Amino acid sequence: MPESIPIAATDAQIAAVTFNEDGLVPAIVQEQGTGQVLMMAWMNADSLRTSLETGRTWFWSRSRQEYWCKGETSGDRQYIREAYYDCDGDTLLFVVEQEGKGACHTGNYSCFFTAFGPEAESGAEPAAEPAAGD
Amino acid sequence: MPESIPIAATDAQIAAVTFNEDGLVPAIVQEQGTGQVLMMAWMNADSLRTSLETGRTWFWSRSRQEYWCKGETSGDRQYIREAYYDCDGDTLLFVVEQEGKGACHTGNYSCFFTAFGPEAESGAEPAAEPAAGD
Repeated sequence: MPESIPIAATDAQIAAVTFNEDGLVPAIVQEQGTGQVLMMAWMNADSLRTSLETGRTWFWSRSRQEYWCKGETSGDRQYIREAYYDCDGDTLLFVVEQEGKGACHTGNYSCFFTAFGPEAESGAEPAAEPAAGD
Repeated sequence: MPESIPIAATDAQIAAVTFNEDGLVPAIVQEQGTGQVLMMAWMNADSLRTSLETGRTWFWSRSRQEYWCKGETSGDRQYIREAYYDCDGDTLLFVVEQEGKGACHTGNYSCFFTAFGPEAESGAEPAAEPAAGD
């Protein structure tokens, strides 16, 4: 099992994050090494702190109105290796070591498996390293 | 100048996108080739259609309440090479050819240039291909 490595964020860093009117901030999850974008979900202040303190991704479910830890039931856990906030402080980026079968509840490795366009097929996942000049 | 390549999305694909109560959907922008996550901004139905039709990224500014085309004033344009929606249809991912000095108005190449953690410094951009075991 990968190691959980806490990130010791400073109070100033936490304070730089802006939450929306529902107290939430979007969190992009990207796979370490491949760079593949795996998913986007929402964090509130508590789940952000818990994520940084535990080194695992914790989100807030808007539909279920509850905290969830990615992979806690599926076993497909995410171990945080880097965490960033953007220039406006209103979006987060987590670079993770993805365990198991991937990030998507559908069984796809990434949640972004459907492309726009005439050739698009469900199941056509974006390449971890997209081909140049495509 | 890179070529603008429209994406001929089907009506079913467009209909699969879910917009929030403000009529917006978050759009992640990732650089082709490097996989670096450059920015996140919001699209409404019109800016999504315009993005796909023109092959350039068009967003809706929540603060200014207006459309904006990335790079139209700065020259740092984004040419869409792949476009995806996620399993829930409530987040978009655009893989782009980034022109010029990058995506961030601060002058950083990516908007995600500030890391959480004790070693974090402004200007420490996430590596395009993050180092393993970091």
